[in-house]
Amino acid sequence: MVIAGIVAGGVGSRMGNSTVPKQFLEIGRKPIIIHTIEKFLVSPEIDYVVVGVHADWHDYMDDLVKKHIEDTGRIAVTEGDNSRNGTIKKIIEKADDMWGIDDETIIVTHDAVRPFISLRIIEENVKAAEKYGVCDTVIAATDTIVQSSNQKYITEIPMRNEMYQGQTPQSFKYGLFKEVYSSMTEEELSIVTDACKMCFLRNHPVYLVEGSVSNFKITYPFDLKMARIMVEEK
Amino acid sequence: MVIAGIVAGGVGSRMGNSTVPKQFLEIGRKPIIIHTIEKFLVSPEIDYVVVGVHADWHDYMDDLVKKHIEDTGRIAVTEGDNSRNGTIKKIIEKADDMWGIDDETIIVTHDAVRPFISLRIIEENVKAAEKYGVCDTVIAATDTIVQSSNQKYITEIPMRNEMYQGQTPQSFKYGLFKEVYSSMTEEELSIVTDACKMCFLRNHPVYLVEGSVSNFKITYPFDLKMARIMVEEK
Repeated sequence: MVIAGIVAGGVGSRMGNSTVPKQFLEIGRKPIIIHTIEKFLVSPEIDYVVVGVHADWHDYMDDLVKKHIEDTGRIAVTEGDNSRNGTIKKIIEKADDMWGIDDETIIVTHDAVRPFISLRIIEENVKAAEKYGVCDTVIAATDTIVQSSNQKYITEIPMRNEMYQGQTPQSFKYGLFKEVYSSMTEEELSIVTDACKMCFLRNHPVYLVEGSVSNFKITYPFDLKMARIMVEEK
Repeated sequence: MVIAGIVAGGVGSRMGNSTVPKQFLEIGRKPIIIHTIEKFLVSPEIDYVVVGVHADWHDYMDDLVKKHIEDTGRIAVTEGDNSRNGTIKKIIEKADDMWGIDDETIIVTHDAVRPFISLRIIEENVKAAEKYGVCDTVIAATDTIVQSSNQKYITEIPMRNEMYQGQTPQSFKYGLFKEVYSSMTEEELSIVTDACKMCFLRNHPVYLVEGSVSNFKITYPFDLKMARIMVEEK
């Protein structure tokens, strides 16, 4: 079984004067998160979709699903947690309640605010997670990456051809997630914010799946403008 | 004196089926490189602009300048070199031939394919280069950065809050550039592709100037589409 977990805990503080979390802003007459959910529902790889939202927006999200999604038997909404990993844990619990999961179940976790994910990326995530246990979606860094530990001047310039920008999905087998998550101390959990970092920290190789420039994260008003144009062109 | 050096050596191999280097593609009825040059010519910080282009495109670039730029007394075109640093060296030589430079002259080097640079970024570059000798324009990495030395799985996840995506300008005093460049071995020059890396390698602190998401590099067809829309909106 393959579950898509849509992570939508954000409150959109970087989007300027919007009072609605950015995943609920509309592009092409539909909320961003609905575009994202639809991509997973049409993927032949995905059995079910679980959306993890902030408690304050649970009812709102339920209403959006009713309004926009026909096949409501394959989707569930749950309340997230303060951290990304906490939200993913809640998503997994919900999936287990609804449909029953086991250690071999693949969880494909994806940012709600990356609506332009392709079916190819979803498929490659499922295949890589099945084969290797865990994978991350990345693109080769187009810009030179520099490091500064003091925010004033460059303290390191890593090798450019080794640098990748992480996108999502991050995908894994439930058994591996459970094992790694339960081994984390409270302190580690407060620092290690996503599943791939947890696996990396416990020496589980995290395989790379090639993302795409279109699979960008809608973070700033600039991104929202781009997203609206991309949707209108289709 | 402050010289803007526009680096336009690229041949646009990533732009798909275009036979024209990407800096010459039009956005809003003007070549990208003309938009970029205009930004520097209107900046009160900049005295002169030198453009470094591939030898094959020298005449073409001369024609573009004649056609689009009124104030031709403040601009020169020169042929670049195989490497970025080589091209910058040619740009500096041209500036010296034309107007005479000294060790305190500030060189603001900028990618031709980043036409959306702001006057604020130019000003802050000049100020930082005057104060510290060398600076780099960066934005805080929006995506998690991961490192892979084998292109298969993650080998390192650097601290996200220390990671920056390098943009341009990179700006420096001519005296510092000269000193650092002349200290480089042939082998170092073949690896170290830009002025900030050279200075970093020789332990000169490279200060950070805050760039902007709009100051993106037009690399892929996706970026070109975005650029055209941004220009049309103005």
